Amino acid sequence: MLPARTLMGPGPSDVYPEVLAAMARPTIGHLDPAFIGFMDELNERLRYVLQTKNSVTLPISAPGSAGMECCLVNLLEPGEKIIIASNGVFGGRMIEIARRCGAIPVAIEFEWGTAIDPDQVEAVLKAHPDAVALAFVHSETSTGVRSDAAALCQLARDYDCLSVVDAVTTLGGIELRVDDWGIDVIYSGTQKCLSAPPGLSPVSFNQAAMAKVASRTTPPQSWFLDMNLLTGYWGPGTKRAYHHTAPINSLYALDEALRILQQEGLEKSWDRHACNHRKLCSGLEAMGLEFYVEPEYRLPQLNAVKVPDGVDEAGVRGFLLQEFNLEIGAGLGPLAGKIWRIGLMGASSTAKHVDLCLEGLRCALRN
Amino acid sequence: MLPARTLMGPGPSDVYPEVLAAMARPTIGHLDPAFIGFMDELNERLRYVLQTKNSVTLPISAPGSAGMECCLVNLLEPGEKIIIASNGVFGGRMIEIARRCGAIPVAIEFEWGTAIDPDQVEAVLKAHPDAVALAFVHSETSTGVRSDAAALCQLARDYDCLSVVDAVTTLGGIELRVDDWGIDVIYSGTQKCLSAPPGLSPVSFNQAAMAKVASRTTPPQSWFLDMNLLTGYWGPGTKRAYHHTAPINSLYALDEALRILQQEGLEKSWDRHACNHRKLCSGLEAMGLEFYVEPEYRLPQLNAVKVPDGVDEAGVRGFLLQEFNLEIGAGLGPLAGKIWRIGLMGASSTAKHVDLCLEGLRCALRN
Repeated sequence: MLPARTLMGPGPSDVYPEVLAAMARPTIGHLDPAFIGFMDELNERLRYVLQTKNSVTLPISAPGSAGMECCLVNLLEPGEKIIIASNGVFGGRMIEIARRCGAIPVAIEFEWGTAIDPDQVEAVLKAHPDAVALAFVHSETSTGVRSDAAALCQLARDYDCLSVVDAVTTLGGIELRVDDWGIDVIYSGTQKCLSAPPGLSPVSFNQAAMAKVASRTTPPQSWFLDMNLLTGYWGPGTKRAYHHTAPINSLYALDEALRILQQEGLEKSWDRHACNHRKLCSGLEAMGLEFYVEPEYRLPQLNAVKVPDGVDEAGVRGFLLQEFNLEIGAGLGPLAGKIWRIGLMGASSTAKHVDLCLEGLRCALRN
Repeated sequence: MLPARTLMGPGPSDVYPEVLAAMARPTIGHLDPAFIGFMDELNERLRYVLQTKNSVTLPISAPGSAGMECCLVNLLEPGEKIIIASNGVFGGRMIEIARRCGAIPVAIEFEWGTAIDPDQVEAVLKAHPDAVALAFVHSETSTGVRSDAAALCQLARDYDCLSVVDAVTTLGGIELRVDDWGIDVIYSGTQKCLSAPPGLSPVSFNQAAMAKVASRTTPPQSWFLDMNLLTGYWGPGTKRAYHHTAPINSLYALDEALRILQQEGLEKSWDRHACNHRKLCSGLEAMGLEFYVEPEYRLPQLNAVKVPDGVDEAGVRGFLLQEFNLEIGAGLGPLAGKIWRIGLMGASSTAKHVDLCLEGLRCALRN
């Protein structure tokens, strides 16, 4: 039996017991009439947490990276240009996937730990009037940085580009308004601020995005992620055609996690994440620890903290795991060894979690 | 709350209570050192049920169709020829995916309900000496037909092709010996004879297949399914690099299902499936019902039964669902309305299941 951890890394976060219990409900058939009704309710909950009326809103049957791939393979045809603003691992992943689609990614690279600068993005949009899309990560999980999704989507619209937004770490943790902000395509994950187990990726395409998909001259290179086939199973519409076998029990879990978030209320959840972030912030600063990201761009749900000089970064994480059964995250890429990433996501965003983490770090740094 | 069904369709099958309980264990981090050990044990169990020593043996984080896509996108480069013997829905799906890879599928079509004829396959292998692979479905879920995987893989070897085998409905239900039969690439699913919930696809690549992957001049078009990146996370090897967030709880479930199968013993499980098939067979024939498939090609785990003239096919399924909470499957494509598909897979392959199904059908047909 694996140890029971407290999860305060970059995801997965702690999963609500109700969600785990939902996951263990008896499996039902993916074409059972009762399950079709369940799917419709689940997608309605997704529309609420995404703040969208998009009829094409559904969970991809694979983790967030597959959601990213789904959005790009459906939207892009070979030879098409996409502008990708990148300020961390996940922006870089988008560039790589766009390239594998045969598209031409125009990368705008920002220093890790900084936000995407709309002015620089606008200059590139101006220089590439043939670009079909602008893609970026709203909440960069690798650095704990929040970029201004509303402003970037407005820019995309101004320059006649579709916007593609990575909201994996965003959803449920900070403000996100798909329709109000004019987001055309969005994907997320379940294992961050929704506090469901990993394995699914909610996506939503608006009408403009679906029109682009409909205008394709070639089928998407992925059959598994083909949005036309996926909507044939998930709806909208009442007739449901078998595509692949949906991960029934994972969907039970997601539905329950969404129900919990709905019950709390989206704005209240955003407030809670902000509040626990401030508490963590005070505690860390009282210990002399510093954040890696400037205050205005910090994600409350993912806190990048500088490793003090002379401290063994991995040693501290090992100590927390060993002595506190507490997981915090390491830095990735150029930030490996330089930061810890402390998640306060979903069920892991509580005062108790903050206290445990502060206590753990105090002990670890005293050693 | 959704109704609790008895699942005797083409999958998902009934899930063992122990497997559901395992799925509800607390989520752990995908890079937790304890989880890395768990992954190694899980893959070792997979090697046992696949009867292989292939070091590259791991579960893809998405359902069987993604496993199919994974095998083809890694193996095939644009312009390469693959011979695909097709005798149902899933052979057809392989052809479609190969085409989307930019490969040239050479399709050999067999009548639905019949097995793949090795002689015809050999003629096509002879006619296409430039083909790099031969792909086929071992257990065609859409028709309940078993083809001779050992013979077909021998042919592939004789003609210097890699063999790609769909074993989604095979695994745990009928004899399968990856190494003895010389299968180069194989994929399966969890929701058939393993009786875990749907959502994962075990795959295995032997050295010849991995050499083909290593010789690629272009990266696989899917980043999410790129075997080089996947083995960086899953091993072999001790250093594990983050690729995507693994679906932790689904992996708990798969591991537990594999443990149960290991405990029973693979050969005993095959015998059990054969035995319950014979029992169903006697019962159906006593009722005057006929099988769609010739006896020697019948899959014990998936029984295609002809709908008698004048009987409302969907009405019977609806009655069983309504009155018995029992799911059986419909026909697909050209067999829609003509057959029922009765699954006796994994936990659903018991004498009790057979009795329930026979009783249900008796009542339904009396109405």
